[in-house]
Amino acid sequence: MVECLQTTHGAAMREVDTIIAGGTILTLDERDTRIEDGALAIESDRIVGTGTSEEIKNQFAGRSLIDAKNCLVMPGLVNCHTHAAMTCFRGIADDRELMTWLHDIIFPLEAKHVDPELAYWGSLLACAEMIKSGTTTFCDMYVFEDETARAAKRAGMRCLLGEGLLDFPSPNAATPADGLGYTRKLIETWTGDPLVNIIVHPHSLYACSPSVFAEAKKIADEYNLPYALHLLENQAERLQLEQKFSKGVVAFLKESGYLTESFLAYHCVALDNEDISVLADHGCKAIHTPESNMKLGSGVAPVPAMLEAGMTVGLGTDGPASNNNLDMFREMDMTAKLHKVAGLDPTVMDARTVIRMATCEGANALGLGSVTGSLEPGKKADIIILNMRRPHLTPLYHDYSQLVYAAGSADVDTVIINGKLVMRNRTLLTINEKEVMAKVREIAGQIIRSLPA
Amino acid sequence: MVECLQTTHGAAMREVDTIIAGGTILTLDERDTRIEDGALAIESDRIVGTGTSEEIKNQFAGRSLIDAKNCLVMPGLVNCHTHAAMTCFRGIADDRELMTWLHDIIFPLEAKHVDPELAYWGSLLACAEMIKSGTTTFCDMYVFEDETARAAKRAGMRCLLGEGLLDFPSPNAATPADGLGYTRKLIETWTGDPLVNIIVHPHSLYACSPSVFAEAKKIADEYNLPYALHLLENQAERLQLEQKFSKGVVAFLKESGYLTESFLAYHCVALDNEDISVLADHGCKAIHTPESNMKLGSGVAPVPAMLEAGMTVGLGTDGPASNNNLDMFREMDMTAKLHKVAGLDPTVMDARTVIRMATCEGANALGLGSVTGSLEPGKKADIIILNMRRPHLTPLYHDYSQLVYAAGSADVDTVIINGKLVMRNRTLLTINEKEVMAKVREIAGQIIRSLPA
Repeated sequence: MVECLQTTHGAAMREVDTIIAGGTILTLDERDTRIEDGALAIESDRIVGTGTSEEIKNQFAGRSLIDAKNCLVMPGLVNCHTHAAMTCFRGIADDRELMTWLHDIIFPLEAKHVDPELAYWGSLLACAEMIKSGTTTFCDMYVFEDETARAAKRAGMRCLLGEGLLDFPSPNAATPADGLGYTRKLIETWTGDPLVNIIVHPHSLYACSPSVFAEAKKIADEYNLPYALHLLENQAERLQLEQKFSKGVVAFLKESGYLTESFLAYHCVALDNEDISVLADHGCKAIHTPESNMKLGSGVAPVPAMLEAGMTVGLGTDGPASNNNLDMFREMDMTAKLHKVAGLDPTVMDARTVIRMATCEGANALGLGSVTGSLEPGKKADIIILNMRRPHLTPLYHDYSQLVYAAGSADVDTVIINGKLVMRNRTLLTINEKEVMAKVREIAGQIIRSLPA
Repeated sequence: MVECLQTTHGAAMREVDTIIAGGTILTLDERDTRIEDGALAIESDRIVGTGTSEEIKNQFAGRSLIDAKNCLVMPGLVNCHTHAAMTCFRGIADDRELMTWLHDIIFPLEAKHVDPELAYWGSLLACAEMIKSGTTTFCDMYVFEDETARAAKRAGMRCLLGEGLLDFPSPNAATPADGLGYTRKLIETWTGDPLVNIIVHPHSLYACSPSVFAEAKKIADEYNLPYALHLLENQAERLQLEQKFSKGVVAFLKESGYLTESFLAYHCVALDNEDISVLADHGCKAIHTPESNMKLGSGVAPVPAMLEAGMTVGLGTDGPASNNNLDMFREMDMTAKLHKVAGLDPTVMDARTVIRMATCEGANALGLGSVTGSLEPGKKADIIILNMRRPHLTPLYHDYSQLVYAAGSADVDTVIINGKLVMRNRTLLTINEKEVMAKVREIAGQIIRSLPA
């Protein structure tokens, strides 16, 4: 219920839940509007006003006030690709060949240890890490995704998630049909939830046969949901799939009718110019995961070319076993620097482009652009506040540069998701950090005891 | 004076200033000794004992005790190349071509604004940032280096520094002779200081003529000091110098007698295999600066080949105007990931190699290997303590992996340099953070007012 008060000047004044005032607001709207000594008015789950502190205080009375002096106030970051529960395997085996890592280490460990408990606590730990590093929305593919949804809900995080669909048995699905059934159940359980959104998630074209992919697409169409897969993570995958399909991979997807505006592709390292042009023509979205691509030696995705072609490209951390963090600040810095060195051109992927990939463009890629990713009246209140009075952030000439090249996750002071305060002065308000760390250490203890000596 | 007490078991017991106990000690000694529930005994400026907590407590009585439970205790990081005072220009102009950036922006700004005050406060701010990110030793090249030495001394940081010598006038030296004279004065002022060490610093072969370089080398020889320059930062520099010398750059250095064990080269991006072989044969040291090389689009230094050839390679952040941070944790992560993607090989530059570059190998490169870079009895007590009970550091399977791929500067809790506590619970004890930030904001305000509108 909206009450009206009178301002001291006599104008009608609207009472709202929260006003954030005194900081520099980076709206990340279409015109990159920046408001010095700015303010936001928040009512329930959404932003109802943006302007200078004076303007907002003349229009709104806040039941609570957050002082953002010396702070940057910006949209929460959008992590477009991760496998949250894999925090439980963080750093268990690094510096290995991708296929050795996957087949000799990760898959056997997963078969043995991944269960609903690991999925829940691993995901909740990931939420703690993500909130503490300024992420307010994440997109997740793993198994037992209902547990990840429950964890996100408890953490108060916005998410888009879907069960990874595979040809071979997963810890949660003996057959592809089981995985598809679980996906339908996820949709039925979570449709209409204010925070949890569902995506259909066939794993990849190498781990998922065309028939499973077709069934997955049918479900996505039936419920009007996005669908996504890992695509062309490296050249070896490209070669393997070209043999399998006897044609180009993107050509195969096009001919199969899979390329639509609801299609997201993760990684996209081994795309050529023709692929990019086809994906762009069909309004497909790409998610760039530079740290994982670097760490696994996969290659450099042609992101400048994708952007040039008009594609919407979001940023993701990938899972914490192949990165090994969920820190979007590191991902932004890496993105800006990787493409400069890859193209020997310091002018590509400037700070503004990268910040937009991590916020509004990421939200657009996930189909959540009307909900989150920028600070505008009508959008959900997904907001982070960074304390800029730090030695490594002094002096401050340009906000975007400072955020990409100098700021770090620990500079995030306050996080609001869907209008709710989930972190204040770096203290999590929705998660008991000690409890979740203790639980995951316990799970990791079991994993360690199962390893060959 | 060393006093002897009796232990409860009757054995002789030595009283020391400080015992750090209960954490996992990563010594970074030659055998990578790791001590669980380990302890260090510190007397005055140096480490006098390492062992398990039980062993140390049986041998030593500490006048003060630091509890490192749930922490990693390791040598302070060694930042082998920076321009500390350039914090004042952090982020003033990013995403530009190197030569545009240097000639159109940085050099004119420096000519107008760099003075002893900027050098002092900019350096002190850099020290604050470095200590807070776990660096205990840095190597610096800029102008007014006596101010940087004073700032380091006030901060309690170990350093190796030298005035940048140029053919053209610098804000501190109208002629090359002035710069050489200032270098002699630096040596006379600081020789014997427990923290400040001097290096002779001709800027580069493109900004410094062979005669200046020869004079610089004479001074280094006279005082038995190391000498260093920026070398082959990109292919353009290589082409330019090959024209200038009508021969290969490393060949020129060799023929001129400049290649000795006291010679350090910064950047080393455009080295070929022959260059590496020659530098290795002469015991020259290289400093790798991946973030700066990436951000400026300079290229990827052939570090795996340098290591293969047996060269000692340290890590540096470069100046905060071309990075834009002094964070060695980010530099480590970037180093490990950059070479994996550049070589499409996830097994190169593993976490152990990178950690050693940031600690003991860096100290070796600077000629300070007998002083710092590892935790061993007889070495100076340059120690950092990281709190590992954090969501993003949970679980913990492998220390080195966790440090390189997951930990960040904000995880550094406590820093000791030369036996003196300079940060505790993230509070700086030698620097007034607010004062130094306010001073640099004031200087930045003058810079902003001088910029064309």
